[in-house]
Amino acid sequence: MTATTTAKARLNICVTCRASSTAASQNSNTPPAPAAERDGKVLYDALSHEMATRADPVAFEIVPVECLSNCKSGCSVALSAAGKWGYVYGNLSINDHSADILKLAEAYANSDDGIIPWRERPETVRRNVIARIPPIGN
Amino acid sequence: MTATTTAKARLNICVTCRASSTAASQNSNTPPAPAAERDGKVLYDALSHEMATRADPVAFEIVPVECLSNCKSGCSVALSAAGKWGYVYGNLSINDHSADILKLAEAYANSDDGIIPWRERPETVRRNVIARIPPIGN
Repeated sequence: MTATTTAKARLNICVTCRASSTAASQNSNTPPAPAAERDGKVLYDALSHEMATRADPVAFEIVPVECLSNCKSGCSVALSAAGKWGYVYGNLSINDHSADILKLAEAYANSDDGIIPWRERPETVRRNVIARIPPIGN
Repeated sequence: MTATTTAKARLNICVTCRASSTAASQNSNTPPAPAAERDGKVLYDALSHEMATRADPVAFEIVPVECLSNCKSGCSVALSAAGKWGYVYGNLSINDHSADILKLAEAYANSDDGIIPWRERPETVRRNVIARIPPIGN
């Protein structure tokens, strides 16, 4: 399938997220990490670096955002593009999901409507959908 | 605040949802309700009926959608509009939230960017945000 719009799809990465695994291991006496060390910021930096090293053109762009209102299930990313369903994915970690987040974004960018068939979703992130929003203007 | 776009905002209501309260009370031997009796469909019908009886013009439209991928926390609705943050709300029930869902959608439609200040959100639905997605094209 090919995208029907010319604007690039976006992989929005929450840079204020803490990973849910990190949050679960912290007790209430642990001070929150400063913004520069937030798990979401680390994830954003790592994926941006990975994208910058690619020789081939990429069908999507990475955008840092502050809070996707999915704080209990971070790290969080949102896939969006004009005319497509928007998706929020959660419970992501840099160690387990980095490579598959980029594969997912590529599949999303190349889809017609934002809906990636189950079997075409990278396996490690298949079950990480938090919610989706219909395209605007349909 | 006034909306900066001319297109109406949308209150998308998942008509395939079961209420999380209903799901929790069902055991595995209970057959699923047919689509016509789904909690989300009942919510959609009720809110559509309420909207149809209003004399004043309304700043948003109600749209039925199939699945917002928030099945564990239904009923679910999504607020969307061109140029605004999109929001998914969950754990909604027809008895507890119907009136405030419409107030929320009105506030959303009248906002500039889709972000409704905490104090201006109807109280019963304040804590029901599941996730949000940045506006496209910013």
